[in-house]
Amino acid sequence: MRLLALLLLLTSQVALAQNETIRRQVAERQHQLLQEYLQFLSIPNVMGDSLNIHHNAAFIKNMMESRGIATQVLTLPVKGSSPLVYGEVKTAGATTTIGFYAHYDGQPVNPAQWARGLSPFTPQITTDRLDRGGQMVSGNVLPATIPDSWRIYGRGSSDDKAGVFAIIAAYEMLVKSGQKPAANFKFIFEGEEEAGSINLGRYFERYKQPLKADLWIICDGPRHVSGRKQLVFGVRGDVNAELKVYASARPLHSGNYGNWAPNAAMRLAQLLASMKDDKGMVTIPGFYDDVVPLSAAEKEAIRSIPDVAGTLSQELAMIRPDGDGRSFQELLNIPTLNINGFAAMNVGAMASNIIPAEATAALDLRLVKGNSVEGQFSKLKRFIESRGYHVVDHEPSMEERKQYPLIAKLVMEEGGYPAQKTPMDLPIAQQVIKAIQTTTAEPVIKIPTLGGSLPLYMFETILQSPPVTIGIVNYDNNQHAENENVLISYLLEGIVTMAAVMGVR
Amino acid sequence: MRLLALLLLLTSQVALAQNETIRRQVAERQHQLLQEYLQFLSIPNVMGDSLNIHHNAAFIKNMMESRGIATQVLTLPVKGSSPLVYGEVKTAGATTTIGFYAHYDGQPVNPAQWARGLSPFTPQITTDRLDRGGQMVSGNVLPATIPDSWRIYGRGSSDDKAGVFAIIAAYEMLVKSGQKPAANFKFIFEGEEEAGSINLGRYFERYKQPLKADLWIICDGPRHVSGRKQLVFGVRGDVNAELKVYASARPLHSGNYGNWAPNAAMRLAQLLASMKDDKGMVTIPGFYDDVVPLSAAEKEAIRSIPDVAGTLSQELAMIRPDGDGRSFQELLNIPTLNINGFAAMNVGAMASNIIPAEATAALDLRLVKGNSVEGQFSKLKRFIESRGYHVVDHEPSMEERKQYPLIAKLVMEEGGYPAQKTPMDLPIAQQVIKAIQTTTAEPVIKIPTLGGSLPLYMFETILQSPPVTIGIVNYDNNQHAENENVLISYLLEGIVTMAAVMGVR
Repeated sequence: MRLLALLLLLTSQVALAQNETIRRQVAERQHQLLQEYLQFLSIPNVMGDSLNIHHNAAFIKNMMESRGIATQVLTLPVKGSSPLVYGEVKTAGATTTIGFYAHYDGQPVNPAQWARGLSPFTPQITTDRLDRGGQMVSGNVLPATIPDSWRIYGRGSSDDKAGVFAIIAAYEMLVKSGQKPAANFKFIFEGEEEAGSINLGRYFERYKQPLKADLWIICDGPRHVSGRKQLVFGVRGDVNAELKVYASARPLHSGNYGNWAPNAAMRLAQLLASMKDDKGMVTIPGFYDDVVPLSAAEKEAIRSIPDVAGTLSQELAMIRPDGDGRSFQELLNIPTLNINGFAAMNVGAMASNIIPAEATAALDLRLVKGNSVEGQFSKLKRFIESRGYHVVDHEPSMEERKQYPLIAKLVMEEGGYPAQKTPMDLPIAQQVIKAIQTTTAEPVIKIPTLGGSLPLYMFETILQSPPVTIGIVNYDNNQHAENENVLISYLLEGIVTMAAVMGVR
Repeated sequence: MRLLALLLLLTSQVALAQNETIRRQVAERQHQLLQEYLQFLSIPNVMGDSLNIHHNAAFIKNMMESRGIATQVLTLPVKGSSPLVYGEVKTAGATTTIGFYAHYDGQPVNPAQWARGLSPFTPQITTDRLDRGGQMVSGNVLPATIPDSWRIYGRGSSDDKAGVFAIIAAYEMLVKSGQKPAANFKFIFEGEEEAGSINLGRYFERYKQPLKADLWIICDGPRHVSGRKQLVFGVRGDVNAELKVYASARPLHSGNYGNWAPNAAMRLAQLLASMKDDKGMVTIPGFYDDVVPLSAAEKEAIRSIPDVAGTLSQELAMIRPDGDGRSFQELLNIPTLNINGFAAMNVGAMASNIIPAEATAALDLRLVKGNSVEGQFSKLKRFIESRGYHVVDHEPSMEERKQYPLIAKLVMEEGGYPAQKTPMDLPIAQQVIKAIQTTTAEPVIKIPTLGGSLPLYMFETILQSPPVTIGIVNYDNNQHAENENVLISYLLEGIVTMAAVMGVR
């Protein structure tokens, strides 16, 4: 037993020493790395902007090849599809293959919503978060020692060019530090994740063999809110829907018709309001019925996750959370119904005294194990029908509108997908936990399911390769919204984390 | 009695003959008149666009002076206030003074919402309503005989440059037809009506004596939905408010926080939904309590108004009106609470998987006799408080947001005003009805209260001059919304109506 303990200590000492070498490498190279990262963030990455999406892919290929990774830009004969950047490193004698995934596309941007002086694709270094006194760093000039509070603002800075960059830089650091990889590596960088990875399955079907791995590491999402590193075994699924309700055929003067003409905004408000109780729980019948209960190990893992609700409440100036008393983590393990946005006519300076004829809401439904895309969508549709609405999937004609007192259009967006979970006791996943643990004094947190969604079910069902997820960025990164940003110190430490994972054999 | 009957018959025959002369004049001059009208509509008229507001005033002054009306452009030493164009015609020996009012400003425009090919300030002639097959008339070229279905699209085409133009052209026609005015005339054309006539009271205070009249004719709004001409004795009051609710301090990822973080859009939906029952009646306590009941004459007048609800339902493809079974006219005689628009984050292509941090609604409250601006606003505020909200009148600080679980900003906009009613038995008003009746075979409709709002209470309280309102445009004019338009035949007939009223002695 003493010998084993000594051996373990030695192994862990070696790993710690290796991490120190990597960390020193990162510190030495940080200015060049960040220059390269700023360039990467300058390339707009919203899907639909096909030219720039291809620029991103070419830029990534160049980053990979300059580090000795054999790289191909794969494409599909599907109109509007984004390229998948694929790379591999073969290690002589290795019997294990580890895959690394991240995505280079970003959420749509509305530049007008970004803070003054920011532009989504002109990355800007700041001395802190802008909403708590951070200043713009003129010319993005970095000092020799970069303070821990400094950030980079820009679309994709956290979600998920950080993942792409950390993986590629980690391989460079691994090689530069003189370590030899113990496993084969595969890399894929996707360009359609924010659109629900609508073509990733096609890539997987087409390149099923080359993309098999013993484990896929998904580098996306934040570190735990506590700042601790974490490994995630599952993700929720997601499906988006647009709901539109109608009142009169055209907007009407609110005086000449007010009290008589129904108001589409009020109809939508009443319909949406009826979907949740005042504690934020969904009232749609059967909404939570098909959820697969958590295993004992998952429940135990959840209990070990630091509770961040108190900190978050203060940070977010929000003292009455939804969820009817359930814990933050419990709530991430059940399905959601969420309004992403709604609109009817105008507010503010553009408002006028009108009765809106139409009102629209963007909805998303997060799914957990047990839920199907069609199943959750159907529950929503049936509920709207139960409220007296005739539900159609197209813009209703005048004739249809004259036929039904209440009419709604409900359209499921392309690209919805189910949840995925990798068993927490998978041996190679245990090794990854150990590797990450060598880079940090605090216990690595194990999360059964992330609240967010990634199309990880495809790794399992098409490639038969289990995925786990490592988030490296700060949780307060405003991902998916305006003013997305990344803590530079987290980005650099993410390189160290990824390099440690590349040591798994 | 026979003599009297004969005399009345003769008088009415004379009036009819005079109208025929006027109508012929209008027909002869229609092409020049419409050219001038198109020019008038080309001048943008949204309040805040100060330069163009002054251009409008100058254009009106020029139209009036070229017809021999002594005109002044009055201004106030109030920043951002619009000029009031004032004119007068003195008639030797006349003992009666009739005032004519219209407004030249228009509702704000969002050009993106207008139909393809239309621009709010590039007036466009069409062969019919665009949403039922109307075609654009290339170059706005008018044939010798203009079909009854032809329209002009443009902001202000109905509301209320039509009023300004009909009054001025009517005076020209009156003079050209060789008739001598029997009364003194006063004219005012306002540039701030859509902003709630925020300075009209100041003008009235300043020019109290010159603006006194035995009756003010307000030329604004549509003819009856049946197409019949009408005289309106009252208007509802109006007050606008902006309601904003808050959830977390910033928008959050709908996966990472979904189920736990409250959604501002859902909070607003639930709050708005609670303000009305599913029949569209307001549930705010006391909302209808201080309404002054209708007089017997008013009830009788209401019974005589043709019921248009059936026609409107078909026209608007809307078969379930609000109002819990009350008639259209009854509903215009009670106060309203209406959502003009709402917004939270984005919908459509810009939507992203976010939990909105804030959501905003633009509201308007129409008032009837008995309601006060402060009173109705207070009922709304107290109701929001009763739903658990801490209501503030400013953007809440982070500290305030941490103090109250539910917080809402409710701000009353400047320019709200109460309802106004002129007694239906006022003798000079009876004469106006008779004058209008000479221009049309169908009975003139008498409306105790219009659903819409005008700041007519100021005529009564400051000038001590009773107002009545004559609408001349088509009811389906999209006033206040995109694609505002006027039926050319209605605009021209409006000139005939106004000229007949100018015959009152």
